[in-house]
Amino acid sequence: MTSVRLSERARHTDEQPITYFLKQAMENPHLISLAAGFVDQASLPAAEAKAALDEILSDPVVSKTALQYGTTQGYAPLREKILNHLRSLDHFGPGDRPISVENVVIGNGSQQLLYIIGEALLDKGDIVIAEGPSYFVYHGALQSFGVRTLQVPMDEDGMDTNALEEMLVQLERAGDLPRVKMIYTVDYFQNPSGRTLSLQRREHLVELARRFSKTHTILILEDAAYRELRYDGDDLPSLLAFDPEHKHVMLTMTFSKPLAPGFKTGYGLLPKEVLAAVLRFKGNHDFGSSNLSQMTIDRMWDNGSYHRHVELLRNVYRSKRDAMLDALKTEFPALTGVRWTIPHGGLYVWLTMPEGMETGPESPLMKAALAEGTLYVPGSFCYVKGSMAKNNEIRLSFGVANEGQIRTGIARLATAARGVGLPRVAMPKLAGCRG
Amino acid sequence: MTSVRLSERARHTDEQPITYFLKQAMENPHLISLAAGFVDQASLPAAEAKAALDEILSDPVVSKTALQYGTTQGYAPLREKILNHLRSLDHFGPGDRPISVENVVIGNGSQQLLYIIGEALLDKGDIVIAEGPSYFVYHGALQSFGVRTLQVPMDEDGMDTNALEEMLVQLERAGDLPRVKMIYTVDYFQNPSGRTLSLQRREHLVELARRFSKTHTILILEDAAYRELRYDGDDLPSLLAFDPEHKHVMLTMTFSKPLAPGFKTGYGLLPKEVLAAVLRFKGNHDFGSSNLSQMTIDRMWDNGSYHRHVELLRNVYRSKRDAMLDALKTEFPALTGVRWTIPHGGLYVWLTMPEGMETGPESPLMKAALAEGTLYVPGSFCYVKGSMAKNNEIRLSFGVANEGQIRTGIARLATAARGVGLPRVAMPKLAGCRG
Repeated sequence: MTSVRLSERARHTDEQPITYFLKQAMENPHLISLAAGFVDQASLPAAEAKAALDEILSDPVVSKTALQYGTTQGYAPLREKILNHLRSLDHFGPGDRPISVENVVIGNGSQQLLYIIGEALLDKGDIVIAEGPSYFVYHGALQSFGVRTLQVPMDEDGMDTNALEEMLVQLERAGDLPRVKMIYTVDYFQNPSGRTLSLQRREHLVELARRFSKTHTILILEDAAYRELRYDGDDLPSLLAFDPEHKHVMLTMTFSKPLAPGFKTGYGLLPKEVLAAVLRFKGNHDFGSSNLSQMTIDRMWDNGSYHRHVELLRNVYRSKRDAMLDALKTEFPALTGVRWTIPHGGLYVWLTMPEGMETGPESPLMKAALAEGTLYVPGSFCYVKGSMAKNNEIRLSFGVANEGQIRTGIARLATAARGVGLPRVAMPKLAGCRG
Repeated sequence: MTSVRLSERARHTDEQPITYFLKQAMENPHLISLAAGFVDQASLPAAEAKAALDEILSDPVVSKTALQYGTTQGYAPLREKILNHLRSLDHFGPGDRPISVENVVIGNGSQQLLYIIGEALLDKGDIVIAEGPSYFVYHGALQSFGVRTLQVPMDEDGMDTNALEEMLVQLERAGDLPRVKMIYTVDYFQNPSGRTLSLQRREHLVELARRFSKTHTILILEDAAYRELRYDGDDLPSLLAFDPEHKHVMLTMTFSKPLAPGFKTGYGLLPKEVLAAVLRFKGNHDFGSSNLSQMTIDRMWDNGSYHRHVELLRNVYRSKRDAMLDALKTEFPALTGVRWTIPHGGLYVWLTMPEGMETGPESPLMKAALAEGTLYVPGSFCYVKGSMAKNNEIRLSFGVANEGQIRTGIARLATAARGVGLPRVAMPKLAGCRG
């Protein structure tokens, strides 16, 4: 009896650790999931999508285009809008940057573009530098490419670019600089930490990529999936702003977070050399993403739905974030030693339990949380194996749960934590409040 | 000035040769393209898609599910329908095969699944055996994986399995059998030749995979994209029918051809071991295809639109095929020495020009055809480089052009061919027919 011989890559391509948790959440409807990176359910733009699709599918000509194959690079009118959108976000004038619609590519969510960028650039043994913690789904892809992922510590201002500089100096000394292909950053309201890279560090980051591009161009993969979901404070320029020749920065964004994941549509603005290679791979993957989805988004953009929806989401998520922060403050008084980040956008809060309180998938806390009926992502998932991983962190998402569920979920988490030894801090007794 | 260093794979991942032709067709609206594998435009199911989407997006609960993330493997109710569909196509009783909904995976068209199956199985230097000619888009992916693709000659009954057997014997003698990972076949109305693998050869093919599975399981990738588009004759069983333990056959099919490419949805039925690896890759690619597309198709299946549409398409394409065959007969009388296949389904006719009349992209015939205003795919594109490629073949598609365009396109091709030396055979003069 013989068996299938998988590829070498398949043997080091693991299941996404999150899969287990997604299944848990799907199978147990009473569980309040603060784990999944799903988006707010109630605000999904069903009526707006219906209106756009009705228009498209009622038009005898447009409907046929929408249901036909499109192009590998993506629907041109949508790419044009994306280009203008990116220019306007960063206040670029028409001739400010050597970028055009030819630099824009559309993918099945930004995830597919992250994947293909990896394929186009990375060889086994290459080095990618990311934040620590960082977006674990992409770690899975990087591992599958056989890449060494190094993580740079973060603080409230995002990736510590001084630590990055030190790392690059050491890599150069060790003769490893030629293997450093790219620096990966989720620089707005990071998944998982909620942190944003500060203005000064943005400039420093691009400067480092430029300075250390000695044998080849070191690229920066700027995963700005959450940029548009800012709830307070001023927008910060993308890394593009510091890359006037557009040599280093590969920007990816998505319609999944600011509009709806069901369209499965994301986009990238890539330097020409990278884009050409990405298109060759995209041609092999699927020769282009769904034309129907792209044209629906294009229509929703034209009629204002898209921008109205982003506005709406800012209000929805701001309230949910506030509910989560408020619940955390109530449930984890300062004396418990629990700390968390204050995100100005995105979907995530990063919680640090007291030293020694483990949060991993097999930990007493996880078991207690599941027993209480809530779910979180262990922080250790967000570090590459054998790295700087700490074992007492947690990613919380206020994406999918509603405000009531968020409060209940956090309360359950606190109960679970107390059950496994979190100090009980005296709180004002609310006698009879359940009566 | 440094430059980007692409991955090794990127350096041997070429642009799909067809891209040039697609651009030609898009840029010149007067050109009649018999090249593109696009589908019939007029029959695309706009009203049916609108009805399904209206229902989905009007329902306060269902709409939210459709616009949310789905699962990596695909929408379960649709996978259930697919399983039943495949069982019914092959007349399997409920317990006949060890297959379940767990064997079904949904992708961005079947192309993405072909790609991921390649990733999951193939290492550089592995051998894949395909028909000659074969589906060139997949050759591009195989080349990108660094695989050696060998091609087996075909005749009117599809892949010559005796030649395949001989090839396997020789590979074994040369010690190369351990590198043979898979046999790729488009076994219904093949793209590009229009040929179908005969019943007897189906059995022989699976028997060979089984017999030569000595060091590992040799898999067969059955790309049955066109199976449902049969215009005459009886359906033939899939290769699954000869693989009772479901050890060898990876079946892929699509909704792009029998329904609409705009949904970008295809599916596979894979042996468990392969499926598990494919899901790990799919998780890294995009953690699941568009939920909205999947639910729309599911609804169109439920309300009968899907099956009615397949019926409609059979009639539409039968007429178009007949128009093409009729035009070929008129324009290329027997004495010209031009021959072609008679497909019983699918979208393609394979034309063989007289020996010595080259059809390649730089050939006088191609230039003359473009000057006349028609476009075909050079047959040489359908062979891997340095192989058995002949230089006098042509792939014609009756997919996208309407009947009038098909007749005009074939007439233009004949004019072009006569202009570059095809014998002029006396035809009855139709004096004044344009008057």
